[in-house]
Amino acid sequence: MADDFDIGRLDEVIHGRVRLGIMAFLSTAETADFATLKAKLELTDGNLSVHLRKLEDAGFVEVQKSFQDRRPVTRAKMTEAGREAFIAYLDAMAALVKG
Amino acid sequence: MADDFDIGRLDEVIHGRVRLGIMAFLSTAETADFATLKAKLELTDGNLSVHLRKLEDAGFVEVQKSFQDRRPVTRAKMTEAGREAFIAYLDAMAALVKG
Repeated sequence: MADDFDIGRLDEVIHGRVRLGIMAFLSTAETADFATLKAKLELTDGNLSVHLRKLEDAGFVEVQKSFQDRRPVTRAKMTEAGREAFIAYLDAMAALVKG
Repeated sequence: MADDFDIGRLDEVIHGRVRLGIMAFLSTAETADFATLKAKLELTDGNLSVHLRKLEDAGFVEVQKSFQDRRPVTRAKMTEAGREAFIAYLDAMAALVKG
């Protein structure tokens, strides 16, 4: 094992497979609406909501609710803290992948 | 997000943080005894046993029990199937880390 690979550096909030997919998507897509995330990551409404809430509670994602053509729209956006945590996560994983 | 990063390719059995640490360690250490894994990954006996069993049930790790100086010793070794699954996992993660 790459000696510097340390599972202690893997933030469990980000490491969860679904949440990792959400963070990876938001890391390049800036913001994304619920339907796009749901389709891209092939999730159920419930599953996506649970994991978005965990990321929101950790302060890594901001969830904005608004109305478009009188219909409710939910958008998610990575926060600065989320971006920093994601970069640190990628760095920790790079020790394994590039090890 | 790197377009080719797909959470569907992340094998949940390997992706779990503790199991990932075990597979990463065994990927270079060939075999390791229980005490070494426990110390290196900073785990409790119970936690390590549960996750070793999951890897064993998936056919990714072989657990060997023997006696040394009349004391029971447990050793873990990655199977060929485990090695293939781990390489596929690293490949899927590389799409994210190098994306």
